[in-house]
Amino acid sequence: MPSATETHKFDLEKAVTELKKLGADLYHKDFLLTWQKNDAEIHSVLRIAEILKEMHARNISARMFETGLAVSNFRDNSTRTRFSFASACNLLGLAVQDLDEGKSQIAHGETVRETANMISFLTEVVGIRDDMFIGKGHTYMKEVAEALDDGHRQGVLNQRPAVVNLQCDLDHPTQSMSDLLFIKNHFGGFDKLKGKKIAMTWAYSPSYGKPLSVPQGVIGLASRFGMEIALAYPEGYDLIPEVVQLSRDQAEASGGMLTVGNSMDSAFAGADIVYPKSWAPYDVMQKRVPLLHAGDQTGLKELEKSCLANNAKFKDWECTEEKMKLTKDGKALYMHCLPADITDVSCKAGEVAASVFDRYRDDTYREASYKPYIIAAMILLGKFKDPAALLKTAMERGTSRSLGL
Amino acid sequence: MPSATETHKFDLEKAVTELKKLGADLYHKDFLLTWQKNDAEIHSVLRIAEILKEMHARNISARMFETGLAVSNFRDNSTRTRFSFASACNLLGLAVQDLDEGKSQIAHGETVRETANMISFLTEVVGIRDDMFIGKGHTYMKEVAEALDDGHRQGVLNQRPAVVNLQCDLDHPTQSMSDLLFIKNHFGGFDKLKGKKIAMTWAYSPSYGKPLSVPQGVIGLASRFGMEIALAYPEGYDLIPEVVQLSRDQAEASGGMLTVGNSMDSAFAGADIVYPKSWAPYDVMQKRVPLLHAGDQTGLKELEKSCLANNAKFKDWECTEEKMKLTKDGKALYMHCLPADITDVSCKAGEVAASVFDRYRDDTYREASYKPYIIAAMILLGKFKDPAALLKTAMERGTSRSLGL
Amino acid sequence: MPSATETHKFDLEKAVTELKKLGADLYHKDFLLTWQKNDAEIHSVLRIAEILKEMHARNISARMFETGLAVSNFRDNSTRTRFSFASACNLLGLAVQDLDEGKSQIAHGETVRETANMISFLTEVVGIRDDMFIGKGHTYMKEVAEALDDGHRQGVLNQRPAVVNLQCDLDHPTQSMSDLLFIKNHFGGFDKLKGKKIAMTWAYSPSYGKPLSVPQGVIGLASRFGMEIALAYPEGYDLIPEVVQLSRDQAEASGGMLTVGNSMDSAFAGADIVYPKSWAPYDVMQKRVPLLHAGDQTGLKELEKSCLANNAKFKDWECTEEKMKLTKDGKALYMHCLPADITDVSCKAGEVAASVFDRYRDDTYREASYKPYIIAAMILLGKFKDPAALLKTAMERGTSRSLGL
Repeated sequence: MPSATETHKFDLEKAVTELKKLGADLYHKDFLLTWQKNDAEIHSVLRIAEILKEMHARNISARMFETGLAVSNFRDNSTRTRFSFASACNLLGLAVQDLDEGKSQIAHGETVRETANMISFLTEVVGIRDDMFIGKGHTYMKEVAEALDDGHRQGVLNQRPAVVNLQCDLDHPTQSMSDLLFIKNHFGGFDKLKGKKIAMTWAYSPSYGKPLSVPQGVIGLASRFGMEIALAYPEGYDLIPEVVQLSRDQAEASGGMLTVGNSMDSAFAGADIVYPKSWAPYDVMQKRVPLLHAGDQTGLKELEKSCLANNAKFKDWECTEEKMKLTKDGKALYMHCLPADITDVSCKAGEVAASVFDRYRDDTYREASYKPYIIAAMILLGKFKDPAALLKTAMERGTSRSLGL
Repeated sequence: MPSATETHKFDLEKAVTELKKLGADLYHKDFLLTWQKNDAEIHSVLRIAEILKEMHARNISARMFETGLAVSNFRDNSTRTRFSFASACNLLGLAVQDLDEGKSQIAHGETVRETANMISFLTEVVGIRDDMFIGKGHTYMKEVAEALDDGHRQGVLNQRPAVVNLQCDLDHPTQSMSDLLFIKNHFGGFDKLKGKKIAMTWAYSPSYGKPLSVPQGVIGLASRFGMEIALAYPEGYDLIPEVVQLSRDQAEASGGMLTVGNSMDSAFAGADIVYPKSWAPYDVMQKRVPLLHAGDQTGLKELEKSCLANNAKFKDWECTEEKMKLTKDGKALYMHCLPADITDVSCKAGEVAASVFDRYRDDTYREASYKPYIIAAMILLGKFKDPAALLKTAMERGTSRSLGL
Repeated sequence: MPSATETHKFDLEKAVTELKKLGADLYHKDFLLTWQKNDAEIHSVLRIAEILKEMHARNISARMFETGLAVSNFRDNSTRTRFSFASACNLLGLAVQDLDEGKSQIAHGETVRETANMISFLTEVVGIRDDMFIGKGHTYMKEVAEALDDGHRQGVLNQRPAVVNLQCDLDHPTQSMSDLLFIKNHFGGFDKLKGKKIAMTWAYSPSYGKPLSVPQGVIGLASRFGMEIALAYPEGYDLIPEVVQLSRDQAEASGGMLTVGNSMDSAFAGADIVYPKSWAPYDVMQKRVPLLHAGDQTGLKELEKSCLANNAKFKDWECTEEKMKLTKDGKALYMHCLPADITDVSCKAGEVAASVFDRYRDDTYREASYKPYIIAAMILLGKFKDPAALLKTAMERGTSRSLGL
C-alpha cells in the first residue's frame, strides 16, 4: 500500500479534530516507555505522526521553532535512529547538536545532573539511546529527566527540554510505534488489528548482544490492540519477565492474548504478521554489564564465544519460504526493524531467507519511514500545551516546506 | 578582478531571464559527470551559481527550504568541499547531517539500497565524495541514485533527493565548474575563452595517490568552450583514456583543440592559463584498488614507495618563475584547486614556486569562492521544476539574508 | 535569585535605550581579550546578553540571520563551551559547522591564511578555542583575524566573519563576562560590586595542565569594577606577569585594588566572593609548549609527574567549610567555571568540599547560563552596525521563538 494512495485519502482536518478529542496531556512530560502512557497518549502520538507525515507529503511546513537546539546523546552506535531523530528535529525547526561523551564521562550522580543542565540552556529536546546495559539505560534517562525538572524549577533553565527515549534497555518506543502505525495502515485501521495474530520470534544471527528492547517494545505495545501475540524463542532466550507479564496483562485487558513458546513453527502457524528478530538472552545481557563496566575484554570475548556457540544450535530459527508457508494463506506480513541479517546476502546464515526479504523489502522500508514522524510527535506533545491548535495554526499559516516545489 | 566590481555590474533580472531562456530540465536528475550534461544544463548551473553569489552579496535571502536535510557522505577526507557543501545547503535552508559509514559498512548491493532509503525520508540532497577507488566512485553514486529512484517510485520516500557528485574517480564537477566560472569572469565572458590556451599539466608533489578527477574534470569541461587545451604529463602518468578521448572530441566540436604531450615547457608556451597539479598515474590507481580493498598495508607501502621514487624523477615539473616566463607575455593566469604543494612553504619541493603562488594567491581563493554556489545551483536544478521562477520569487519576497545588516 | 524573578523586573525597552546610549562600535572587530575593549564595549556585550536572555525567556525570536554558517574551531576538548557556542549561533539563526583539523594541519603561516578564507565564503562567525600553548592561542586568533580582513578587502569574501575567542592562552572572555553578569545580578547591579572583595585563588586538583586563562580572565575583568581582588596561590603558581600588572592598574583606576599573596586563608578573610580554581604554574605551561610541539610523550609524562607531585604539597588549598567560615559572615558566594573537582565526588581530594559545592550548585549553573548569551552578544556587535536598532526590530516584528508555546 504505497503512501501515495494513503495521501489522497488522508483528511488533515478530521485528524486534528480527533487529536483534540483525545485530550491527552503530555506537556512537560517525557516519552520513555509506552506502557507508562495511557491510550489517549499513545493514540495522540500516532495521530500527530500521521498528520506530520501528511503535511510533509503535501509540502506544508511543520516548522514550530524559529530557533532551538535538539541534543542527541547516543551511547551506542546508530545510523537510522540518528537520522530519524535529526529528521524529526529538523522538521520542527530544531538544530541537532551531538553530545559526544568521552568514555570517561559516562559517570553518574553529580555529572549527569550537571551535564544535563549545561547542555540545556537553549535546548528543547534531548534524545537518548542507551541500550547496552541491562538495568542502566532507563535509569539514566530518568536521572536526566529529574535533573532537567530541577534545573527548570530552580530557574536555571528558561524552558524544560523534553526527553525522548531513542532505545533503552527496556523499550524502543520510537520503533514499536512506527511498527504499529505501519500495520495499522497496512491492514486499514486499528480495529482491523483486533484478533490478528503476530508472531514475535527470535531468529538466528551470527552476531551477538542485540538488545531486548525491540521484542519487548513490540509485545509491550501490540498487546494493547487486541492482537494475538505468539512470543517464541529457543529455551534460554527469555526476555525480562516483568515486561512479558505486563504485556500479557495488557493483551488480556484489550481482548487479545499473549502466549510464550519455544517453537517458531507454532508461532508462525496461521500468523497474520511475523517479526523474526535476533536478540541476546536476558541472562547473557546481565552477565555483560559488569564485564562492560570493568572493560574486561577477555571476559567479553569468552561470553561472546559461548553465546555464539549457543546461538549456532538454533540456525533453524530462520524465516524461510517453508516457514512462511505456515502463516495465514502463506502470506503473513514480514516485519523487521532493520538491518536484517539476510542469509547469503549479509551473512552465510541469518534471520531471514533472501527471497522472503526481497518480497517484503519495500514494506520494511515503509515500516521505517514512520519513525521520524513518531519522534517529532513525541517532541510536540512534550513541548506544547495544545498540539491540536498548534497543528491547525501551522496548516493555516500557508507556509510551504519548500518554496514553489 | 575583485568581486566588488563584478557586483556592481551584475544584472540579476537579466540573468534570470537568460536562465529561463536556457530551458534546461534537470528536475529529479542528478549531477554526476559534466560530460553527461548538455550545454543548456551546464550554462544553467553556471548562471544560477552567479545569481546566488550576487544575491548573497546583496543580502537577499536564497532560502528555499523551511526545513529539510542534506546528507553528506564523505568517503575520503575533505575540508574545503565539506565546507562548500555545508555552505550551499545552508544557503538554501537545508541542515547538513553527516553519514559516517564505519569502514565495515562500506558494502555494496543490499546495503547501499537500504541505507540510501533509510537516510532519505526527509532528505532533499545527498552529496557524495568517493574518489579513492578507480572504477568504484561513480558506480557507487549511480547505485545510490537508482535506490532513491526506486524508493520514490514505491512511495517509500515522499520526495526524491538530488544526488550531487562532490568528487568521484572520474570527475570533480563542482571543482571544474568553479574553475570555469572563475576564468569566465576573469577574462570577461564565455566568448573570451574561445581560442585561449590552457595548460593542464602534471606537477611534482612529494605525496602520492592524488585522484585523477581534477585534471579529468578540467579537460572534460574546458574542452566545451573552444579552448586550446594542452594536456601534459611525464610518461606513464596517463589519465583514463576514455575521458581524454571524449575531451578531445568535445574540443574539436567546440572549435578548440586538445593536445597531449610530455613536456611542461611546450604546454606552458604561450599559454593564457596554467593549471599545474599533481596526480597519480592511472595504472598506479588501478593497482591500488585491490590493495585498498584487501587492506594490504605492506602492498600499499610498496606501491607508494615505488610511486614516490618515480615521482622524484620529475621534480623539474614545477611551476617556477622561469616556466611562467614561457607563457603569454609571461603573465598566464595560474590556477589550482588547493591546497597546493608550495616549494619551501608546505614542502621542500612541490608543484609551484612560492613567489608564483604568492602572486596568484587571491586569485586561487576567488577560484574556490564559486564552489558553494555551484553546489547550490546543482541542488536547485535537481529539486525545482522552474528554478528561474523560484529565484524571481525569492528576490521579490523582500527577505534579507541577515536582518538589517 | 532565580531568573524568574529577574524576568519580571527586566525592562527590555529601557535596556535597548541604554545600549544605544553606550554608543559602542565593534562592527567588523573581533572579541579576543576583554582588556582591549573599552568600558562602553564591555557594557554593550553585557547589556545585549541580558536582552537576549530576556527575549528567550519571553519567547521572542532573536533570529537575525535567515542563513549563514558559524565555524567552530576547537583545538582543545570542550563540552560546555561547545554547547554555549552552538546555542548562541542557533539563537541568531546560524548553523554550526565544525572545523576538524587533523593534527597535521595545525600549521601556521600559509595554511592559516588559506584555511581561514576557505571556510568563510558564507560564514558569519568563527569561534576558536586554543588554550593549550602559552604564547600561541592568542597569536593564532590574530592570524585568523588578519587573514579574514585580507580576504574581505580583496573581495574574496562577501562579508567579514567575526572572530570570537572561546578561550585562549591569555583570556577566557566568554567565561569571565558570564561570571561578571552573574555577580552583577546576584548583588543587584554593577554599583553594588564596588568595594566587594573577591578571592581568586588557586585550589588543589589531582589533574594537571589546566589553562591560566580562567583566573587571568577573572582578574582582568573584575578589576574594572572597583572590586577588591585578592589573588592567591602557592609559591610558584604565578600567572603571566603582564596580565597581573594590567589587572592591578585597572583595579587602581577603577577605585579598587588587587593584592597577590600566598595564603588562601588571607584571601578568603572577609571575602564576598570566592573563586577557588586549579591551574598549572606559568613556567610549567611554558615548558610544555616545546614538548607538545615535539610530541615528546616521555618529556610530557615527566613534566606531569613532577607537576602533580608539586601540586600534592598543596592539598590544603581546598574550599572547605572551615575556609568558608573565614569569609564575610561565613556566607561568601562560591563561584566556579565548572566542572569542579569535588572532594569525594569526582575525586578523592579536590578543589572544593562536597557540602560547600552542594550549597552553591544551582548558583554555579546560573553562572554558566549566561555564556550562550554573552557569545551571541559578541557576535551581534561584530556583525551589525546598530545592534540597538536591530534588537528593537526583532522585538517589534512579533515573531515567536516557538509557535504558540
